[in-house]
Amino acid sequence: MNKKLTLVVTGAAGFLGSQLVKALLQRETLADNHGIPREIGKLIAIDRVALQGIKDSRLDVVTGDISDGEWLKSILPATVDSVFHLAAIVSSQAEQDFDLGMHINVDAFRQLLELLRHRADPVKLVTTSSVAVFGGCLPAKVTDREVWMPQSSYGTQKAICDLLLADYSRRGWVNGRSLRMPTIVVRPGRPNMAASSFASGIIREPIHGEPAVCPVSRDTPLWLLSPRKAIEALIHGHDIEDSEFTQGRVINLTGLSVTVGQMVTALAQVVGSGVEEKIAFVPDATIERIVNSWPGDFDTRYANELGFTANDSFTQMIEEYLADYAS
Amino acid sequence: MNKKLTLVVTGAAGFLGSQLVKALLQRETLADNHGIPREIGKLIAIDRVALQGIKDSRLDVVTGDISDGEWLKSILPATVDSVFHLAAIVSSQAEQDFDLGMHINVDAFRQLLELLRHRADPVKLVTTSSVAVFGGCLPAKVTDREVWMPQSSYGTQKAICDLLLADYSRRGWVNGRSLRMPTIVVRPGRPNMAASSFASGIIREPIHGEPAVCPVSRDTPLWLLSPRKAIEALIHGHDIEDSEFTQGRVINLTGLSVTVGQMVTALAQVVGSGVEEKIAFVPDATIERIVNSWPGDFDTRYANELGFTANDSFTQMIEEYLADYAS
Repeated sequence: MNKKLTLVVTGAAGFLGSQLVKALLQRETLADNHGIPREIGKLIAIDRVALQGIKDSRLDVVTGDISDGEWLKSILPATVDSVFHLAAIVSSQAEQDFDLGMHINVDAFRQLLELLRHRADPVKLVTTSSVAVFGGCLPAKVTDREVWMPQSSYGTQKAICDLLLADYSRRGWVNGRSLRMPTIVVRPGRPNMAASSFASGIIREPIHGEPAVCPVSRDTPLWLLSPRKAIEALIHGHDIEDSEFTQGRVINLTGLSVTVGQMVTALAQVVGSGVEEKIAFVPDATIERIVNSWPGDFDTRYANELGFTANDSFTQMIEEYLADYAS
Repeated sequence: MNKKLTLVVTGAAGFLGSQLVKALLQRETLADNHGIPREIGKLIAIDRVALQGIKDSRLDVVTGDISDGEWLKSILPATVDSVFHLAAIVSSQAEQDFDLGMHINVDAFRQLLELLRHRADPVKLVTTSSVAVFGGCLPAKVTDREVWMPQSSYGTQKAICDLLLADYSRRGWVNGRSLRMPTIVVRPGRPNMAASSFASGIIREPIHGEPAVCPVSRDTPLWLLSPRKAIEALIHGHDIEDSEFTQGRVINLTGLSVTVGQMVTALAQVVGSGVEEKIAFVPDATIERIVNSWPGDFDTRYANELGFTANDSFTQMIEEYLADYAS
């Protein structure tokens, strides 16, 4: 089989999306739907705004609205091997604008599933879910068997997508893999409307000599993964063989449990004392309610078995940021 | 407050629906949205076919397609206090016709939520969910914290509705209560397209001297509730005060765990030996796969706390059937 793979990435101009496109184009091969390693022939990068800064003859940058089914149908080639679906309305925005969240997070995903449904060979569909599907009276460590009880519309919408992806996969209509992402830290760039945006901000801003606001208390535990590990997880999740999915297609990813206080201490250790003073602790009831409803620690037995890995320490996560984005 | 309640029942011509309409019209009062007992002024009974056999000046029988949003909007009065939403595509049919299941079980429910969303006073919305939301490697007794892992499109669709009902309730847009029904046994009438239809058939048909087919093995445990208890649960679930919902609006109902073998033994005890010979055990792989993916026993702590009750014995359930439907 010399046929090369055609990949699609949605949300490709976003942070994870653009990192993923870069990483995919650097790969020698990816596993196809039958587990056979194949080269990448074409990568279609979709977003509302054009993905910029990556030059590769295999890359096809397309702009448009993922929720426009007719348009999406028109740009999906007849032979798509894999879709990485990252386009989403983030948590705070989905809480502020319920309808927009349903429209993009649920309806656009369902439309994508329908577009992929009638293909002869099931398309690999890798998407990201969220720890926001959990909530209520949670144990200190959340296991793979923990009930879903989202306390936000974002968590609700991601849980609905998980259910749909699992059912379409069970029926053999897609070859789905949903990865429940920890909070990705340290992100470069500007704050976004994710309720967890502060978790990158309180590290990133002080490193660049700028002030940061932390809307939650120091003892808040967060479940974290670095951008490098997140991209690794997306590609690893894509390549897992079907037979390994003994407990379904929805996977609580590996991560590192760290409190906000520990994050700040590690920051001072890496970049020197004084940096702490850049962080103002100003409680925000809405952000606190959402973030405190998420689990701060997991026992990710299934993800461990499937070969996902996490960061060793938060210090390592800061050092990755310094190496990758702060030069 | 002398204002009387306006109630809506969807799926009103179905078995549970018609029993519920009867039971509601016999009540002195129901709790309104503020917990105040009020008389029933009007009950709108909606279904594809007309509810028949119930005469009451407060009853308004309406026929139409619940998935037609414009029509539903036109028949919902400006002041609806409570909706009992029972209309659904049952499990085997939703498995055979995925699109029909999504259309009625998910999209029509979502349309109903949207129609109720913009009311000044949140409408009480009582609906039924299913043990089919569970699946995978289940413990012998499923607790309130068990992860959702549906192995059928019906279970998937009911889980999506549970998530939506919880989020709309959290936002204060409806006052929702979703009751995860056990298998309702013994139903009168003819078999339907529920995968669990045999569970009534193997009792009902022999009682009437007719043969029955059992598509699952004798050691299959089932989680059961009688029709009387199910109707009680719907009305109790409606009347629970908001402050009691300490663990959300989705409730695994109380039930009784009985194996198929124990059901047959109880039948022989109640109606005499010989009746067993009417039951042919003919395995059906599709039904077995679906039924075996459901939990056969629960620890329903939350439902117990909320005051739901189950049958004491399967013998009692047969006797209820004989008293209510076999005369």
